[in-house]
Amino acid sequence: MDKRIEGFSKLTKAQKIDWITRTHFNNPENAKSSLSSYWNTDSVLQNKHDEFIENTLTNFYMPLGVAPNFVINGTVFSIPMVIEESSVVAAAGNAAKFWGSRGGFKAEVVDTIKVGQVHFLFNGDSTLIHSFFEKNKSELLEATSEFSVNMEARGGGIQSISLLDKSELIPDYFQLHLRFKTADAMGANFINSCLESIASKWEELAQKENQFLKEGKLEVVMSILSNYVPECLVRASVQCPVSDLSPGKDWAGAAFAKKMVQAVEIAKKEPYRAVTHNKGIMNGVDAVVMATGNDFRAVEAGVHAFASKSGHYTSLSTAYIKDEVFHMELELPLALGTVGGLTKLHPLVQWSMELLGNPDAKTLMKIVAVAGLAQNFAALRSLVTSGIQKGHMKMHLLNILNQLGASENEKEAAKAYFNKNAVSVKSVSQFLLKHRP
Amino acid sequence: MDKRIEGFSKLTKAQKIDWITRTHFNNPENAKSSLSSYWNTDSVLQNKHDEFIENTLTNFYMPLGVAPNFVINGTVFSIPMVIEESSVVAAAGNAAKFWGSRGGFKAEVVDTIKVGQVHFLFNGDSTLIHSFFEKNKSELLEATSEFSVNMEARGGGIQSISLLDKSELIPDYFQLHLRFKTADAMGANFINSCLESIASKWEELAQKENQFLKEGKLEVVMSILSNYVPECLVRASVQCPVSDLSPGKDWAGAAFAKKMVQAVEIAKKEPYRAVTHNKGIMNGVDAVVMATGNDFRAVEAGVHAFASKSGHYTSLSTAYIKDEVFHMELELPLALGTVGGLTKLHPLVQWSMELLGNPDAKTLMKIVAVAGLAQNFAALRSLVTSGIQKGHMKMHLLNILNQLGASENEKEAAKAYFNKNAVSVKSVSQFLLKHRP
Repeated sequence: MDKRIEGFSKLTKAQKIDWITRTHFNNPENAKSSLSSYWNTDSVLQNKHDEFIENTLTNFYMPLGVAPNFVINGTVFSIPMVIEESSVVAAAGNAAKFWGSRGGFKAEVVDTIKVGQVHFLFNGDSTLIHSFFEKNKSELLEATSEFSVNMEARGGGIQSISLLDKSELIPDYFQLHLRFKTADAMGANFINSCLESIASKWEELAQKENQFLKEGKLEVVMSILSNYVPECLVRASVQCPVSDLSPGKDWAGAAFAKKMVQAVEIAKKEPYRAVTHNKGIMNGVDAVVMATGNDFRAVEAGVHAFASKSGHYTSLSTAYIKDEVFHMELELPLALGTVGGLTKLHPLVQWSMELLGNPDAKTLMKIVAVAGLAQNFAALRSLVTSGIQKGHMKMHLLNILNQLGASENEKEAAKAYFNKNAVSVKSVSQFLLKHRP
Repeated sequence: MDKRIEGFSKLTKAQKIDWITRTHFNNPENAKSSLSSYWNTDSVLQNKHDEFIENTLTNFYMPLGVAPNFVINGTVFSIPMVIEESSVVAAAGNAAKFWGSRGGFKAEVVDTIKVGQVHFLFNGDSTLIHSFFEKNKSELLEATSEFSVNMEARGGGIQSISLLDKSELIPDYFQLHLRFKTADAMGANFINSCLESIASKWEELAQKENQFLKEGKLEVVMSILSNYVPECLVRASVQCPVSDLSPGKDWAGAAFAKKMVQAVEIAKKEPYRAVTHNKGIMNGVDAVVMATGNDFRAVEAGVHAFASKSGHYTSLSTAYIKDEVFHMELELPLALGTVGGLTKLHPLVQWSMELLGNPDAKTLMKIVAVAGLAQNFAALRSLVTSGIQKGHMKMHLLNILNQLGASENEKEAAKAYFNKNAVSVKSVSQFLLKHRP
């Protein structure tokens, strides 16, 4: 069967599905009905979702859950989380409750600067390009006026433009390095539109004034925003007296605080651990990023690069005990938007935004950072006390039971039995076999 | 209105929704119907999805699209992609077609080793802990037999265990560092179960043989797998004569090849660019990771840490011209599973797996790496030729038109007009106003 095709994108959705299922599946009818069983019965709504991307065949369900009781700077939030991994929402809810009765979470935005660059080569005298830049700087900025006017009205816009000589990295390599504020938008389209306008003006000026540059050739390689945003930074923190920190009757607050500090210290120093430690933070971060229609790949890239900025990949969070008070803090870069992008297009993103009280971008940064810190606290709490498998296995058991088609009664019996026995697909299916009439 | 609640997780789904909408929304009935409009009409299917995580209220739709025509090691694949960002699936399809007629993609798995660690403190004589470890090594491994037997039968299992002295990082800090193979499973549950068994045996032995350790105290801090997997590595590549590389009539192959190499070189040397370059790769990677039910936070963390391993955050891909042949390569760590986790639970994951010919984990690693390389090639091709805004703006226009409720006729007229005019919510709504009767 030939699995190549010309003009796939031009086919209708029905034609695409017909071809895909006919050429790739043993049972095309089953494959078709798998797809259509996920379509929305409201065709207008379905069409809206189909047009988000290209070649859409159906809706991939990600569960949307809610973790209530987050107290952030004194305000209570219920946080929407889109994630497929079990235990994450439960952990968020537990951490929220724990800290809710211990002063809640604090969060502050450090700054909201984003970066974009025009990368270019110039093979002439480098002092000439510097004076050429100074001479034409305002004309370059003017080239963005079409886009900047609106953004400036909203309190954003280009904050600075500078010419950077990077020829020590690559011969003839220079940058126009721009810093932006984008108000409540993530701002990718604004930044890229500004950069492309500046780049084309920059090449145009260089051609027109080639005498000034003494025939040095200027060539733009590319113009694009950066997802590395170390100046678009937010901090979240919790603190409470060590004596109030007990996570349960088996643990004194002081012993638990000490162990939490040790665990964070290990993640600070040991990259194998740091990566997983930060992954746990990102479970919370991404779940809220997705629920609010933001781009988790952009956030992930910026966050992990930030974690490696010292030259040594390290923990994003810090924990310490000072004057018998336990402190835990998280600092991370988050370029988020609450307008533009999917925010107005995806009805459940609008729902999530309303659940959060329609936050502005800075408030959303704080909420997302808190979700990350909560997740980090909860994961470490499990790790240094009972281990993570106990909780994971409880959820894993439920998943296996569903997979094996267990009834509600069988589920209850299995939960009791596997409280003290090892969970695996094999052990669960043996249990069910033994308990079925 | 009090937004705090006790016992939320114990409520039924209907009760949860009732409380959430009543306490957080101006119009609770609207908020309820937003959620229920996304429920599946098949309650058995819906219940299955509700149980993936905790406090599930509804299904967050992510579009599932398909990019056909990927030739990988001579076999043709249509690749399922779950992503909310426009242009990614189209770019994948374009890159697939481009390389399909130029020899296709090559991919190879370098290795599939995963890592897990028992982090512990020992305040005694470090030579003693080393001999204690050697003496008890086989007993530690035996403590995992309950889990290892099955994994070994499938060709995986513990590959090595070693004691690492990390006391130069933190006083008294040591690790049991284990390397695993997990066959076609991602293996998190297997690895963590092994580690927790070993950790508890390790503490038990140390208590029992406290004389041997001369009363040095051994204390486990935590036991967990690492998402840093530099030995779970896959490589993808393309190559073709420079003369065949022309991306369109305005570009000679040689000039385009040179510019692509420059663009990758900049990402190799300049971290602000590297982060965004790799973000583009992850657009492709994550879309397939999600469609196949894998954990994108784990993959993201491992990949970006790998990109920073030299102490300098850098591009994951490489491009060069050798003997008039253009080469582009991507190497990245990917710990993926094709069994366990969501793979059997989420019907659309099963659909995606069948679309891919039910690959084993190694084949999936290759497919995902190729999706990343394709995305990287397509993004750079846009950046160094027309710029990315042209394509983005086309999609952005469609989104804005949908948001403004444009008719099919209005959409067609707007597409023609905005081919040469700047797209913004304002300009599009002005256009529609002018063209509405």
